[in-house]
Amino acid sequence: MEERKPPYFAVIFTSMLKPGQAGYGAMAEKMASIVSQQKGFLGFDSARGGDGLGITVSYWESRDSIRAWKEVLEHREAQARGRDWYGHYNIRVAQVEEDRDS
Amino acid sequence: MEERKPPYFAVIFTSMLKPGQAGYGAMAEKMASIVSQQKGFLGFDSARGGDGLGITVSYWESRDSIRAWKEVLEHREAQARGRDWYGHYNIRVAQVEEDRDS
Repeated sequence: MEERKPPYFAVIFTSMLKPGQAGYGAMAEKMASIVSQQKGFLGFDSARGGDGLGITVSYWESRDSIRAWKEVLEHREAQARGRDWYGHYNIRVAQVEEDRDS
Repeated sequence: MEERKPPYFAVIFTSMLKPGQAGYGAMAEKMASIVSQQKGFLGFDSARGGDGLGITVSYWESRDSIRAWKEVLEHREAQARGRDWYGHYNIRVAQVEEDRDS
């Protein structure tokens, strides 16, 4: 996401994808499409390396907008399948205090 | 990084690596080695996809420990070469409020 004046919020999602997860790509694309329509959503950045470790950081106007996204039906369905796809994952919520593009 | 009780701090570094950057890997390994010895450093996660977009999130005990790392000589030298390696990059500092492993 481009630089934006703080404060705003970030959800840092790190995950280790299991090998050979058919259907994972389609789910990830669907989530990206749905999240973009959420109230308070500002953008996201995502990268996954050859070792399977992925980091997705999504940016939000408020803690309430993060909580609302957590409860969206399609997102809850994806969350319920996390164990199928990921060997391990972690979710952090953080308040952004500084933001500088170069 | 494994789950850790908040509050603590995160530096979210997103970067678009230019193609064919000889020497970049060695510099990145050197930074990873040096940062691990910094006071207040808690850990980091890093991923770069095939499109060149990379995300590295480092975790810190305090804002002061982040400021101190920014001033380390070898790190300053790497920062000065950022334009050589990256088409674009962004640095965000955030306070982690929630942290949950699964």
